[in-house]
Amino acid sequence: MIIKMTETATEEMIENVVSKVKEAGLESSISNGEHVVVGLIGNQKAMEKINWSELPGVQETQEIKKSYKLTSREFHPENTVIEIGNLKIGDGSMTMMAGPCSIEGLEQIMECARIAKEGGATVLRGGAFKPRTSPYAFQGLEEEGLKYIREAADAYDMKVITEVMDEANLELVAKYSDILQIGARNMQNFKLLQAVGKTGMPVALKRGISGTIDEWLNAAEYIVTQGNFNVMFVERGIRTYETATRNTLDLSAVPVMKTLTHFPIIVDPSHGVGIREIVPPMAVAGVASGADGLIVEIHPEPEKAWSDGAQSLDEALYANMMKKVHIMEKAMKEINQVD
Amino acid sequence: MIIKMTETATEEMIENVVSKVKEAGLESSISNGEHVVVGLIGNQKAMEKINWSELPGVQETQEIKKSYKLTSREFHPENTVIEIGNLKIGDGSMTMMAGPCSIEGLEQIMECARIAKEGGATVLRGGAFKPRTSPYAFQGLEEEGLKYIREAADAYDMKVITEVMDEANLELVAKYSDILQIGARNMQNFKLLQAVGKTGMPVALKRGISGTIDEWLNAAEYIVTQGNFNVMFVERGIRTYETATRNTLDLSAVPVMKTLTHFPIIVDPSHGVGIREIVPPMAVAGVASGADGLIVEIHPEPEKAWSDGAQSLDEALYANMMKKVHIMEKAMKEINQVD
Amino acid sequence: MIIKMTETATEEMIENVVSKVKEAGLESSISNGEHVVVGLIGNQKAMEKINWSELPGVQETQEIKKSYKLTSREFHPENTVIEIGNLKIGDGSMTMMAGPCSIEGLEQIMECARIAKEGGATVLRGGAFKPRTSPYAFQGLEEEGLKYIREAADAYDMKVITEVMDEANLELVAKYSDILQIGARNMQNFKLLQAVGKTGMPVALKRGISGTIDEWLNAAEYIVTQGNFNVMFVERGIRTYETATRNTLDLSAVPVMKTLTHFPIIVDPSHGVGIREIVPPMAVAGVASGADGLIVEIHPEPEKAWSDGAQSLDEALYANMMKKVHIMEKAMKEINQVD
Amino acid sequence: MIIKMTETATEEMIENVVSKVKEAGLESSISNGEHVVVGLIGNQKAMEKINWSELPGVQETQEIKKSYKLTSREFHPENTVIEIGNLKIGDGSMTMMAGPCSIEGLEQIMECARIAKEGGATVLRGGAFKPRTSPYAFQGLEEEGLKYIREAADAYDMKVITEVMDEANLELVAKYSDILQIGARNMQNFKLLQAVGKTGMPVALKRGISGTIDEWLNAAEYIVTQGNFNVMFVERGIRTYETATRNTLDLSAVPVMKTLTHFPIIVDPSHGVGIREIVPPMAVAGVASGADGLIVEIHPEPEKAWSDGAQSLDEALYANMMKKVHIMEKAMKEINQVD
Repeated sequence: MIIKMTETATEEMIENVVSKVKEAGLESSISNGEHVVVGLIGNQKAMEKINWSELPGVQETQEIKKSYKLTSREFHPENTVIEIGNLKIGDGSMTMMAGPCSIEGLEQIMECARIAKEGGATVLRGGAFKPRTSPYAFQGLEEEGLKYIREAADAYDMKVITEVMDEANLELVAKYSDILQIGARNMQNFKLLQAVGKTGMPVALKRGISGTIDEWLNAAEYIVTQGNFNVMFVERGIRTYETATRNTLDLSAVPVMKTLTHFPIIVDPSHGVGIREIVPPMAVAGVASGADGLIVEIHPEPEKAWSDGAQSLDEALYANMMKKVHIMEKAMKEINQVD
Repeated sequence: MIIKMTETATEEMIENVVSKVKEAGLESSISNGEHVVVGLIGNQKAMEKINWSELPGVQETQEIKKSYKLTSREFHPENTVIEIGNLKIGDGSMTMMAGPCSIEGLEQIMECARIAKEGGATVLRGGAFKPRTSPYAFQGLEEEGLKYIREAADAYDMKVITEVMDEANLELVAKYSDILQIGARNMQNFKLLQAVGKTGMPVALKRGISGTIDEWLNAAEYIVTQGNFNVMFVERGIRTYETATRNTLDLSAVPVMKTLTHFPIIVDPSHGVGIREIVPPMAVAGVASGADGLIVEIHPEPEKAWSDGAQSLDEALYANMMKKVHIMEKAMKEINQVD
Repeated sequence: MIIKMTETATEEMIENVVSKVKEAGLESSISNGEHVVVGLIGNQKAMEKINWSELPGVQETQEIKKSYKLTSREFHPENTVIEIGNLKIGDGSMTMMAGPCSIEGLEQIMECARIAKEGGATVLRGGAFKPRTSPYAFQGLEEEGLKYIREAADAYDMKVITEVMDEANLELVAKYSDILQIGARNMQNFKLLQAVGKTGMPVALKRGISGTIDEWLNAAEYIVTQGNFNVMFVERGIRTYETATRNTLDLSAVPVMKTLTHFPIIVDPSHGVGIREIVPPMAVAGVASGADGLIVEIHPEPEKAWSDGAQSLDEALYANMMKKVHIMEKAMKEINQVD
Repeated sequence: MIIKMTETATEEMIENVVSKVKEAGLESSISNGEHVVVGLIGNQKAMEKINWSELPGVQETQEIKKSYKLTSREFHPENTVIEIGNLKIGDGSMTMMAGPCSIEGLEQIMECARIAKEGGATVLRGGAFKPRTSPYAFQGLEEEGLKYIREAADAYDMKVITEVMDEANLELVAKYSDILQIGARNMQNFKLLQAVGKTGMPVALKRGISGTIDEWLNAAEYIVTQGNFNVMFVERGIRTYETATRNTLDLSAVPVMKTLTHFPIIVDPSHGVGIREIVPPMAVAGVASGADGLIVEIHPEPEKAWSDGAQSLDEALYANMMKKVHIMEKAMKEINQVD
């Protein structure tokens, strides 16, 4: 349920509502737009006991009809901005994340960090626990890798995003990273979603290999109902009949998600297309679709990469792409002012 | 087979090759880039009779391995530019096509032409023969509709693009239009492809409902082998499991096609997503993906449209979108100069 | 609209209704089950002018809500049986169709006919006009091929099913065949559907490469609204992400279609899976799903076939499969008596 | 690597090979067919140290090329039979599993067990931990539910199959069940696969929502490499564009899997189609496709089911279906003797 305040509602009136919410044993989330909207979190019956409409400054209350509630834009009409130190995701700027598929060693991740940073990235990606189709494929350096990526990110004043594959290693991954990535194969691993929800840490929830928009939003709800409002979505392509690309990057998911949820959305063109040469144009198009950020795979020597070499950009290609991305960022600022 | 000339080959040397081609009973297509490339059209055995490599100025000959040959970029390394009067498609500019799903009457199509033109469109779209899932649905005004769209386009100095559904009506449709559209359901109607190939007129070949990139290129080959090099592709979304949008607009098809073929590619965000509010961001992203043009559905009163109302833009939304599209065009010019 | 007669309605009462229908300028179709159902064909307004419920023996009238009407089981609750000479399709027996992908010569098709017939097939398949992805692939022997298949079928007292790809060759194909096949790529070639509808000949409508059940039924309606009630459906697999098989054979389409339409449905395991060894088990499963028939590709020497060799059965494999199919037919008769 | 013995190899020779395997620090798996095949499990380098071909009775050794090795039929040419007490799965008989989607109470599951058993089922299914799209949906009775299903199964002398969703509850689920089910959403939850692998218990691995055949086999390899050869596959339909059914049941997966792996495969028509009336024909077709068993959802009062009511069979429908299934079982025995 949400409580929509009148346009003229005072600070005091809002505080009054919030304190009533607390008294009722519920929690609240504030969205500051033209109208302040107070979202109610907790037991439905407790919500219904109070006649909220009678409180001063309240315009109306509204049930959220969708199966996902706290994740929906109705619950929080304004964009949610995730803050990680001085980094803000979802505030209208473009957050750039880059790094290798797998962390292969300290030197490699250090070099990746340097390249990533020079191109303008503020978040370093890299996998230490790798979900691989075959049990015989390289499964990641695990804690050793986590230490390396932390060291590299710190050296270049970057944040770390890395995948957590199971609850057993959650504490370990959380210790070394700033953003917990939930991989596509785990989008509906509900127990893991609840576990990362409990950490309160920023979570990047990748779209499932054939996840629907609706399932994706409901998956986020598993995180958010644990009190964790630091969720970002990552569109990484969906599985279709087309084999010309690794997946089909669904950029229309960006504007569609923007209408349905208040959380930021990041585009991953690397997994989206899986072909090095096609990554830059899709990164550019991703920015143009309205994404809050990009996440791309880079490698100092893609041809020697232990995984995903075919879709990794080398330094030159990445630097070139980033010039285009920056031009696009400026264009989008202009576009966002058209009305 | 292609003949690649040396960088220093003279005009005379090229003419010599071309005349030898003619002598052999073959036709040729010239692509003027750093190297001139002469593409050979016709009987494979006739091609093999001559030792092309010995001719002055010839660097090498090359077989085209792909199943589609004349359509492949190997055959014609430079972009093909389609000229329709003063309109050029594929020359680096963005061609804007707009109009209603169905032509409903003279007044409606006139009003659409005015709106389209004011926003910057140079091509007027509108269906007079409508492929409809149900035989009981409105099937189009047929010749009456064709007359109306021609009149409207002429009044606003625009070109006409309209669908031809069968060979029987091809002459009729050709009489009133500038670009023959082959609909998604007919992408592999090979007899129709050959028939429009024979007209020599510009053809807009929509991607099939679940057409692969490879099938699409081969479908074009049916047109081109009739001697018609005026082909443009239209990405209009593919069928996937996702139901949040009408189709899944595959923007990655744009850069992928650009590497595989020399023909222009247009993006249709209207059919691609099927939701009015999502059309403008995907039009903008379509330009950013590197498309040569856009085709969108507009209607003076979308809520009263006889078909596809849910995805048609009204005047205000279209005008607003076009402002954004124009900003994006400028950005793309800048991006295309990055190297 | 349908008119449902009472269980006790006499022959006379039914005839009275039918003659009133004729008087109203409409046509009728009779379904003889527990209740006789008279389906009305023609102008909706003409139907509404008469108060059918007042006629003796009429229990009720009912609008058909689905977009396809004459094709729906509501319109004709009993199974439609298609009769071609002494062959009946849809009467509870299993119709077996077999033959090569392409007709390659008289000898080849004769040999196929012999093999097919010995295994129990009564219909000979074979393509004379072949829809091929590439224009450079073998396109069929055309009229020559049609003559050969007719000759072979006559020699073995079989019926001919062959594909018609366009209106221009319809008369020609019709002349030599008993069942006109509409290929998957033409499922929504609405002009062609109407044209085969007008012939009144039996039509086998293949499911589109990614045709939905609903589109398929509506496509049939294009045929039936031309007065042609001799339609059979062919499930031939749909396009999915899975590449282990050529297509994904959707056997659930059989019972689903049986609830929605009165027309017979045939299963094509050859195109459905595209792997020789997997064809027999899926043929057997196809019978078990409740299909009215099977259509399979055979070839005297599959490794030399001009097309689809990988999915064609040789004589031994076909004969072996047919033994299993016959066991399954018996089992299905027993199963159909369970209540 | 596999060691293929000669047809005439003696018991002693085989034992000799097995003891050499042990000496090399490896494990072995025996497949008794025309030729005995000894599969080697463990370190690749250790395998290569010994010149196996020189041992008496050895015909040849062979590398397994596929990414999944122990799961492949090359590794174990004969069918693997899983034994659970007196129940054998994969021995040519048909194993019937039935029960509710969710365990709702002792009375409900007792009633389900009675119905299931009377129809011929030997395994009782029922979920105590339910993966649900929305966090607000019923998530299962957890341990209480496990106790109920165990009690019901024991009362009717049945085995229990139930889903385990995470490692944290694995011990608990294992305590009450005979077969651990890995749900479709967890097909590539590799940590969970390894964990159930370690238990050594029978595991039913459902195909992922859009899992490819290849991914599915590799997922099993995660279980088998833990030393657990008690794996069965469950085909439960895949996600496609078609919405007429809940999923598209891919029965061709049954014969395809049979050629690729030695483990049994079960068909789940309930999730495969999601429509009560379509479950029985697809169960029958599932048997005909060559499956080793069926798993279906039943409920004493489907319309009151807490989950999946629309696809659950009531007692009458289930009993009726089972009569057909039993006829089909007999037919398949006959079919399997055709050669």
